[in-house]
Amino acid sequence: MSQVAPPRLAVTLGDPAGIGPEVALRALAALPRPWGLHPVLVGPLPAVERELLALDTGLIPVPVAPGADPFAVATGPEGIAVVDPAPGTPLPAPGAPSPAGGRAALAAVDAAVDMAVRGAADGLVTAPLSKAAVRMAGKPGFIGHTEHLAARTGGREVRMMMAGGGLRVVLVTSHVALAELPARIQAGTVLTTIRLAHDALVRHEGIARPRIAVCGLNPHPGEFGTEDEAEVAPAVERARGEGIRADGPLAADGLFGRVRELGYDAVVAMYHDQGLGPVKLLDPDGVVNVTLGLPFVRTAPGHGTAFDLAGKGRAHGAGMAAAIALAARWAAVAAAPAA
Amino acid sequence: MSQVAPPRLAVTLGDPAGIGPEVALRALAALPRPWGLHPVLVGPLPAVERELLALDTGLIPVPVAPGADPFAVATGPEGIAVVDPAPGTPLPAPGAPSPAGGRAALAAVDAAVDMAVRGAADGLVTAPLSKAAVRMAGKPGFIGHTEHLAARTGGREVRMMMAGGGLRVVLVTSHVALAELPARIQAGTVLTTIRLAHDALVRHEGIARPRIAVCGLNPHPGEFGTEDEAEVAPAVERARGEGIRADGPLAADGLFGRVRELGYDAVVAMYHDQGLGPVKLLDPDGVVNVTLGLPFVRTAPGHGTAFDLAGKGRAHGAGMAAAIALAARWAAVAAAPAA
Repeated sequence: MSQVAPPRLAVTLGDPAGIGPEVALRALAALPRPWGLHPVLVGPLPAVERELLALDTGLIPVPVAPGADPFAVATGPEGIAVVDPAPGTPLPAPGAPSPAGGRAALAAVDAAVDMAVRGAADGLVTAPLSKAAVRMAGKPGFIGHTEHLAARTGGREVRMMMAGGGLRVVLVTSHVALAELPARIQAGTVLTTIRLAHDALVRHEGIARPRIAVCGLNPHPGEFGTEDEAEVAPAVERARGEGIRADGPLAADGLFGRVRELGYDAVVAMYHDQGLGPVKLLDPDGVVNVTLGLPFVRTAPGHGTAFDLAGKGRAHGAGMAAAIALAARWAAVAAAPAA
Repeated sequence: MSQVAPPRLAVTLGDPAGIGPEVALRALAALPRPWGLHPVLVGPLPAVERELLALDTGLIPVPVAPGADPFAVATGPEGIAVVDPAPGTPLPAPGAPSPAGGRAALAAVDAAVDMAVRGAADGLVTAPLSKAAVRMAGKPGFIGHTEHLAARTGGREVRMMMAGGGLRVVLVTSHVALAELPARIQAGTVLTTIRLAHDALVRHEGIARPRIAVCGLNPHPGEFGTEDEAEVAPAVERARGEGIRADGPLAADGLFGRVRELGYDAVVAMYHDQGLGPVKLLDPDGVVNVTLGLPFVRTAPGHGTAFDLAGKGRAHGAGMAAAIALAARWAAVAAAPAA
């Protein structure tokens, strides 16, 4: 299709006591060959070896020496490079959050972010970690991947997008108590979200003039509460003034009811449960979490560590495979020279 | 199937300037014969005549004299009795809210409620009205059908259920500004909702021991905000103590993502946009609004007046037909003698 090199993706293993290593390897084994992307695993080498023994994928792990460029390692057709940020560390037992699991998950993310920030990777795909485990590992203020990535890249304004079943939902707020929402929904935060959604659709999806639906904060916006007229409507107006095809504030229930026929390229939802129930219902297995606003592409499966499934060989890699495929597509567009 | 008389349903026409009369008549024309239910239309006779001319349904309107029992009127096989609460009133023009439309809609609801309250009807199916029009008609505090029905039946505790696509969602709160939710979500209001859902499933759906999922108020309940531990969890515990199979508080996004495989008989959602986006997405055309807690069955289509479609002959009656079918089923169970 083009002569550009396949996008280089750092794929973290997440919490090694969860299903992260299993779904990462299942996803890579399930993706059609040739991959059209260049993956490197980031996480405990023993976790990769354990899963590869259990799964019989035909993949061969190739450890990367400290300081070497993992994308320049010769792996052969069946090999996959593995960057282990803490070699020799014992693995935690599968099935429960632990300080060791949290430490390993965070070390993998930080190593992968470093690769992306210094231009040694085009994108990041992160297997799930456990907030509880990371907190046990001495990070009591840890909220989640998305917030951590924002902090590690200079405190950027980032937003969570969930994509699945033909629907893309971008959240103005995500991990916030409901009581805090009225103070958080401000014209500026809403406008930033609309812009990030617009830019991502133009840049990575190649949609010249994307149509964006913006939910209200309240049911029947304009009938209940004041925020929709005071904050959301002005943000939509400003976005339209910038040439963005945004509509809103719209009633979220009616919008999601008609979302397939309305043909919007993305929906901006004001908060977590307003936007994520519908998109997860549409595509429970293949929904992909994308962070907008970072200087590199970052995706993740929509699911969590699923400790109850870990170590049983019963997890499937559909969400991780969708996350890898989307990251590869977005990173390829980002890396391709302008026409 | 049984020798009990078919359930007597009062079907209101809603705002005559909206799509209510059209969808009510299309729904009746589309329902398979014999109906297995006994419908009576309640609303302006000229609206019925206008729609019947336009739609060619084969139905013949039979006006009911004031004071007569509309279900005792001889109509013949193609006839349908029409109770006009304000005979001789001119119809408003289709397409916009007006005081005349609001007045007609409210008069129809009140007449139908009177029929149900005095036992002259087994259930109510209401075509959509316009809150704005009812307010124009001199009821500035009008919030919606559900709240009005509660007030007209002695201030009962009622709850909105939306059913469609195999999912039933019951709301603890509905037409409330988001900022008011933390104060409104109390153990008592949540418990009442769980009980109403449980009772309806046992009584009308014949499910001996229904399973009910209860959402948290906050994303990731227990991680953000205090209400899920302080109010929702104790309500679920009390319900379980009463023998109700309730689970929660659960993360709403994960629950809706897995709702088809989890097999719950109903989901209790804390508020409007948390619950209604998913169920409307699952079944945009056939979703039915049911009021729980009234002394009679009441259903309605999930859609509104759709003034932009009114008078064009382009509305479909799928939601209204689903509402009539569900009311007939629930009213038949309620009316059937105990085995």
